[in-house]
Formats: sequence, C-alpha cells, structure tokens
Amino acid sequence: MPLQIGVIGAGECSKEAVLLAEEVGKEIAGNGAVLICGGLGGIMEAAARGVRQEGGVTVGILPGFSAEEDNPFIVIPIVTGLSHARNVLVVRSSQALIAIEGGYGTLSEISIALKLGIPVVGLHTWEVSANIIMVDTPKEAVKKALSLIKK
Amino acid sequence: MPLQIGVIGAGECSKEAVLLAEEVGKEIAGNGAVLICGGLGGIMEAAARGVRQEGGVTVGILPGFSAEEDNPFIVIPIVTGLSHARNVLVVRSSQALIAIEGGYGTLSEISIALKLGIPVVGLHTWEVSANIIMVDTPKEAVKKALSLIKK
Amino acid sequence: MPLQIGVIGAGECSKEAVLLAEEVGKEIAGNGAVLICGGLGGIMEAAARGVRQEGGVTVGILPGFSAEEDNPFIVIPIVTGLSHARNVLVVRSSQALIAIEGGYGTLSEISIALKLGIPVVGLHTWEVSANIIMVDTPKEAVKKALSLIKK
Amino acid sequence: MPLQIGVIGAGECSKEAVLLAEEVGKEIAGNGAVLICGGLGGIMEAAARGVRQEGGVTVGILPGFSAEEDNPFIVIPIVTGLSHARNVLVVRSSQALIAIEGGYGTLSEISIALKLGIPVVGLHTWEVSANIIMVDTPKEAVKKALSLIKK
Repeated sequence: MPLQIGVIGAGECSKEAVLLAEEVGKEIAGNGAVLICGGLGGIMEAAARGVRQEGGVTVGILPGFSAEEDNPFIVIPIVTGLSHARNVLVVRSSQALIAIEGGYGTLSEISIALKLGIPVVGLHTWEVSANIIMVDTPKEAVKKALSLIKK
Repeated sequence: MPLQIGVIGAGECSKEAVLLAEEVGKEIAGNGAVLICGGLGGIMEAAARGVRQEGGVTVGILPGFSAEEDNPFIVIPIVTGLSHARNVLVVRSSQALIAIEGGYGTLSEISIALKLGIPVVGLHTWEVSANIIMVDTPKEAVKKALSLIKK
Repeated sequence: MPLQIGVIGAGECSKEAVLLAEEVGKEIAGNGAVLICGGLGGIMEAAARGVRQEGGVTVGILPGFSAEEDNPFIVIPIVTGLSHARNVLVVRSSQALIAIEGGYGTLSEISIALKLGIPVVGLHTWEVSANIIMVDTPKEAVKKALSLIKK
Repeated sequence: MPLQIGVIGAGECSKEAVLLAEEVGKEIAGNGAVLICGGLGGIMEAAARGVRQEGGVTVGILPGFSAEEDNPFIVIPIVTGLSHARNVLVVRSSQALIAIEGGYGTLSEISIALKLGIPVVGLHTWEVSANIIMVDTPKEAVKKALSLIKK
C-alpha cells in the first residue's frame, strides 16, 4: 500500500509558501505517496493541487460537518465533526509530516507529532525543537520525509 | 470525485454475513465508489476484500494507534486513536451506509446515522427504525444506497 | 470520591419524562452521587435541576464550543467541541447510566454502554437488549444503578 | 457557578515545578475556582493536591479508558478514551490556562489555547508567543488568570 505523507500549514499563508506547498505536493505524488492534510485552504489546498497535477491521491481530514467544506483537490474527504481535535488524526495518519510556515494550529500538530515520535520536516516553520528536520526546498523535504519513514 | 459508501458490521460475524459483505464490496467497486469502513476484521475485512478484488479503493478509519491494526485490504488507513468515538467518523464520512448484521458498535453507528439523516440500508441488521431501508441482496443494497445519495 | 451516574435522554421529551428525570436527579443527589449528562435541555436539564434542588453536583459534557450552551443547572461544564462524538464521553465517565425515553442520540449512548459493559437502567426507553435493566420508577432506577456499580 | 482554571504541564517534571503547581492549586481553591487538568501525574497531580489541601474541586480529563488512571486528588474524572485528542478538551473547558514547564503535550495545549483565544499564563514554560503572559510566582499566575477571565 502507498506511503502516507502529511503536509501541515495554515489556511492563510504567504505566496511563497503556496508555491512551496504546491511543489511539495508534486513531489509526494511523483514518489507514489498519498497526501494527508486538513483538507481546507492555504497550504492544504496548495499541496493538494500539486498532488492532483501529478495525478496522485489526496485525503482531507476535515474539522467540520460536511464534505463540502473541502478544497477542490481533495479526492477522499474524511468528515470528523471534531474541530481542532482532528489535528491529532492528521498527525497519526501520516508516516512523516512536512510543516510549511504555519500558525498555532500547525504548532499543535508539530507538538503532537514530536510527542508521538512521528518525523517532522520543516520548511520555514516553527523552530521549537531540534527534532524538527529543517530543509530548504520542497524536493529535499519530500526526500527527507521518505527517508525518515524508511528508517 | 468518487462517492463514498460506508459498510458497517461487527468484527466477528456469521459466514453468511462475510459472503454478503464481500459481494457488497464488489458492487461498491463496480459502481466506482470508495469504501469507508472501520478498517478491522469481520464485515469490515470482507467488504474491503470484495472492493479490492474489483480494484477499488478502501478507507479504514481505525480506532487504535497504529496503521498496522488494519486488515490487509485497506488502501488508506486513517489512524484516529479515538477508540469507539471513531464510529462517528465512519458515519459522517459516508454518503450512505450499508449495515450488515452487527452488534452494539454497529447499532451505535446506525443510531448516529439516523440522527444525522445519513441514509442507512440494512442487510439482516438491527430493526430499530422504519428509517432503515431493509433489502435482501448485496446488489440491491448498493443500488439502494447509491439512489439515496443521488436524492 | 463520589460515584458518577449518567442520565441520558433527548433534548426534547414528554412532560412525563421531565418529571421522571427530575426525580431521578433528586435521588442521585440524595445518594451523594454526581450527575454526568450531556449538559443541554430536555432530560438533561430536568435531571440536573433535580440534582441542584437537593444541592448536588452536575457535570455537563457539552457537544459545542462554549460553556454558555449548557443548561442553568450545570455546575461543571466540560466543553468538548466534538459534537455527537461527545456521547462516548458521557458513557465512559459514568459508572452506570439511566436512560429515560430518548431518540437516536440516546440509542447511540445505550449501544456504546452495552458494548463497553457499563450498566444501563431504562425508564420507558429503547428496548433493544435484554441487558438493559428496565424499571418503573425514578427511585428504583437510581437504586438499581447504584447496586450495579457496587457489583 | 465557579470559574474553571486549567493547569497544564508534563507528567514528569522538576521538583521546583511540583512546588509551583501545588501552590497554584492552593491559590485556585483559595479563589473559589475549579481546577481543570489532564488528571495524570507530575504537574497535574501536584496542582490537584494543592487544590484538595484547600478543600477545592478538581476535574481530571483523562486520556484513557478508566477512571482508575487518575491521580488520587481528582474529585471528578472525565474518561475520554481519546488519548492526546483529549488535550483540546482540557483547553476548551478552561476559562484561562496556567502552563508550568511542560513538554510537547503541553506545547500542543498552549497552541490550541492561543488558536482559540483562551488566555495562557506561563510559569517557566514554552516561550513561543508574546501572547503567553509570563509570570514569576504561583500567586501572580492565578491572579493574572482570574483577571484575564474577567476581562
């Protein structure tokens, strides 16, 4: 079965971050992995768009009560109705996470991942722990994420 | 994006129910829909096996802490760590549900679906409400489920 | 520490059920137990009102995002933001449950309790299992619930 | 109804932090507020012990499947079975939070609180945002928390 890589970041983000997320998405699909994300806008939408451009599969773990809140690039919406508690599911369902920029919601996901020992690769994100593997490019991010899963 | 049909039933079930679930799975895949289920054994495994025999996609919304608890026919494991509270996610992520036999866990899912107004089709399952559409065959079950989504 | 008894039932219910729930609440407080409930109206409010009339403690495990959605008789609101998934918490936090009438939400709680082996006492409620101990009066309901905990 | 103040921190912590948490607990009870916490050891236990020494009420929102995992100073255990997803409930159920030291779990709670706009007062904790109000003593911490609720 395919590997599952999570991409986390805010619903509102910089233009640079959108480009990074889209490239990360392309690399994920290019490597045959499935994208796990929160299913909404911003980083989540950009990553999903990148995956879809390469024909890959995207999963959106949504906070609300309807699949219709997802972005147009989500193939499989998971409707949780759990609000922010769904962040834990995004983390647990990913074999490695790539964090791009991000606000407090993203920080909560990074924290849970570090707590659970799930690898976190960072692109211009929260520098709260030496356990976050910082990288400079989308290609490096996905390569690193994949190598950490294989360990 | 593909329709999502949930199949609910117990981890331990009769041989007859296994055959029904497998046929339901084949029909789901044959109609191009994605299977949503709880990801474990019994009915969940039989339905997922049926879907995979026809090359379809299966999602397992797991109660525990590891993707490794899923059955061998789950393509996309969602790891929740929520125990029985994940039942609500199985229901919410499905556009229609097919209940096959089932114990108390299944009854909790049927109840939530009826509460939320998500259609429930039943094959030899709990008869607790006239709102459960009882059918006799897997083919009818999937046909009915699809028609209720389209409404 | 005090025993915790859950009272479950719908947000909208008959006048007879309101009276039953209020009496159940009085009995719970009279026996020194804490009331666990869903914190909203109908049965939940009536039971909490009964408890408060006798000076007892009430816990409302709320589905939404604010403590302000609770009824006026909740002493300790637990704000979950989990919507119907909070039903599982009402069940797990109770050492025994008393179900009064009830709709599909109540049925989901009864189901989870039966699944987990938490005793359920019923007053004019869903008759879906011989494992629900049916009684006729509030006094009997609380007496039975307490005796089942002590087992 | 009483105010609800959350105390967050790790299950394992320094001796200094234990003393701080115990004092915080005494101040919470002294001000007539209820303690909300995660119900386990370390900071959670020390704060609960402090509250109980002053005769106050403690709520433990537990991650596991049994009330028996709580520390001996919890009056009202809430059994969630949600593992780390219960962190969100600790945050939402508190009108203000006091963070003492803390690991990644605590950081996830701080993040969710900042996301939701629930005030966070810090004693030797994560310095990830200017929105965390840093203080030096337990007395100040509780005073500050109470003043932020009243705003």
